[in-house]
Amino acid sequence: MNREELQILLVEDNPRDVTLTLHALRQENLANTIQVARDGEEAMDFLFCRGEFAGRSFEHPPRLVLLDLKLPKVDGLEVLRAVKGDPRTRAIPVVVLTASREEKDLVDSYKLGVNGYIQKPVEFDSFRQVIKQLGLYWLVVNEPPPSTAFRA
Amino acid sequence: MNREELQILLVEDNPRDVTLTLHALRQENLANTIQVARDGEEAMDFLFCRGEFAGRSFEHPPRLVLLDLKLPKVDGLEVLRAVKGDPRTRAIPVVVLTASREEKDLVDSYKLGVNGYIQKPVEFDSFRQVIKQLGLYWLVVNEPPPSTAFRA
Repeated sequence: MNREELQILLVEDNPRDVTLTLHALRQENLANTIQVARDGEEAMDFLFCRGEFAGRSFEHPPRLVLLDLKLPKVDGLEVLRAVKGDPRTRAIPVVVLTASREEKDLVDSYKLGVNGYIQKPVEFDSFRQVIKQLGLYWLVVNEPPPSTAFRA
Repeated sequence: MNREELQILLVEDNPRDVTLTLHALRQENLANTIQVARDGEEAMDFLFCRGEFAGRSFEHPPRLVLLDLKLPKVDGLEVLRAVKGDPRTRAIPVVVLTASREEKDLVDSYKLGVNGYIQKPVEFDSFRQVIKQLGLYWLVVNEPPPSTAFRA
């Protein structure tokens, strides 16, 4: 992997959860290149290389998208549906990271093709452990799709 | 999760890799319930509840499928295509675990909707570490789809 490339797009509107996630990733040295999108529209602009991100290329997506579900402007499930429904973005690993305990969110996410689904632990130490395992798995153990996987 | 339910379907024809994988999972206490399928046809029978597995229910799939690609009878990519193409099985997390270094296998797997992709390390200690991280992520951290995700 090119370490200069973006590793994580964190789509999260809760400032506390952004801080906690970045802190946990930094502790594991997994936080070199992270982009934060504060709502679903910004995430869509980033992932579909438009608006202020029109200069980006589909062939260099983030290695992992961490996606909250309850987001302003565009809902997380709509972002997931768009990403998994387009051959230019389908191969991007997307993990839902949510406080939701609703079974419907879990079912819908898997049906839309999510790669993984994580319920945010409330307690900080557990949250940190989860972010650590998640980071080790997706950024170290898992083999990301090569750029040719993003050609329509 | 009901700990009595099957946790892993390991689809692997190489006896050495079966032994190594089971050994690594046992060391992490992650190996309570594992089914091994030695070829793609047996994996298909298991996942689609037919043949000797006709008594199984689609609503109780394995929590994780570890899928080798080069398999006798039915190729791993064909198993993946079938699982991800059927609403009764699509939500099952499938991770390719392969010795293949071919970019085409990686691209095809992601295009077919694989949840994760891992290249088997050759060296035993690395293999064990990878199996450990994989097990911790998929069996402990990740939230599996509920049974309602497997209704057509």
